[in-house]
Amino acid sequence: MRVSELSARSGRSIPTIKYYLREGLLPPGRRTAANQADYGDDHLHRLRLVTTLVEVGNLPVATVRTVLAAVDDEDRSMHEVLGAAHHGLALRGAEAPPSGAIGEAEADVDRFLERLGWSVATGSPGKRVLAGALASLRGLGWHVGADVFSRYAAVADELAEWELGRTPAGASRSRTVEAVVVGTVVFEVALVALRRLAQERHSAIRFAGGTSTGR
Amino acid sequence: MRVSELSARSGRSIPTIKYYLREGLLPPGRRTAANQADYGDDHLHRLRLVTTLVEVGNLPVATVRTVLAAVDDEDRSMHEVLGAAHHGLALRGAEAPPSGAIGEAEADVDRFLERLGWSVATGSPGKRVLAGALASLRGLGWHVGADVFSRYAAVADELAEWELGRTPAGASRSRTVEAVVVGTVVFEVALVALRRLAQERHSAIRFAGGTSTGR
Repeated sequence: MRVSELSARSGRSIPTIKYYLREGLLPPGRRTAANQADYGDDHLHRLRLVTTLVEVGNLPVATVRTVLAAVDDEDRSMHEVLGAAHHGLALRGAEAPPSGAIGEAEADVDRFLERLGWSVATGSPGKRVLAGALASLRGLGWHVGADVFSRYAAVADELAEWELGRTPAGASRSRTVEAVVVGTVVFEVALVALRRLAQERHSAIRFAGGTSTGR
Repeated sequence: MRVSELSARSGRSIPTIKYYLREGLLPPGRRTAANQADYGDDHLHRLRLVTTLVEVGNLPVATVRTVLAAVDDEDRSMHEVLGAAHHGLALRGAEAPPSGAIGEAEADVDRFLERLGWSVATGSPGKRVLAGALASLRGLGWHVGADVFSRYAAVADELAEWELGRTPAGASRSRTVEAVVVGTVVFEVALVALRRLAQERHSAIRFAGGTSTGR
């Protein structure tokens, strides 16, 4: 198909598609004339994957490139690709500047994960984020240990075990890897949105007599 | 205390504090000389709250101002403040441009929430985010309905009910409101981080024979 059809079928503008091509997020089409190229269904699919990562996951282009390289590298194990995706995927709070109390919070988080029996890599961004969250709570006068996250850890553990178990059996490697990456990004966004909606619902029940305001 | 002590105790630089003062995120101190003001423990506490929202929650300054105004407005019910916080708090994916398939996805999400019996406001950003997530999955060739989110909804519902139930009894309104806002922001960040860590752990068990890579 021509780039105009790729645009129509994906709902993305031609300049956006050309930008992704320039940035290497989309492989070039098959050249058919000096200024014309032909794109296949693979391009359409890759374009939708890029769109999901950029627009739903809110990932910077450089990160998308790293994640896609891991997806495409047949020599990398599923676990490595998931690791690359996690390290590449922006995690809100990960860039919070360290405050004085962060070192103590980090040690507490390490001990907490150890008690849970979770084996995670030393540099996992998630650990830094948790430590930052703990330090923030303490700064606000909450006298809490890392076990303030216990219930969240239990929920996350159950969910992740179920999610990893859903990885489609017998699918091609590229589809499997894609399912894992999309799952991480899209269902994370969905989980956060659903928690907010559920809070709205329970806040209505608790504070507003069961009716939601029109705000 | 002087601004220098406020800076030392909060771990935030004097220019940062002056910026928050200019932006109205911190109330002015009590003026003690032409170019000098005195700050109390309330300022320190408010500064830590602002820091949490900006650095952990990654919220733009304008949003923090809106959320703080709702926190400070004694006439607003808890449910309204939570609503203001939710509408103000950035939700990843909420700004994804609508694609052709979004209308259908929105209707599906509405029916899904109705089946769950969740009463949520029409304009809740969470709904738009869910619809965007569903449209993205479909664009990638996943033949799924909104019930692909069922398990996440169940988890979110249970968590939110427990979270709202934890609102401290007998605390002052301002502390209660603050606990709700901080809870939304900080525990959301923690939940996302823990899900990633749990995925890493279960990916190690499933794909890498139980050992986490050093990445």
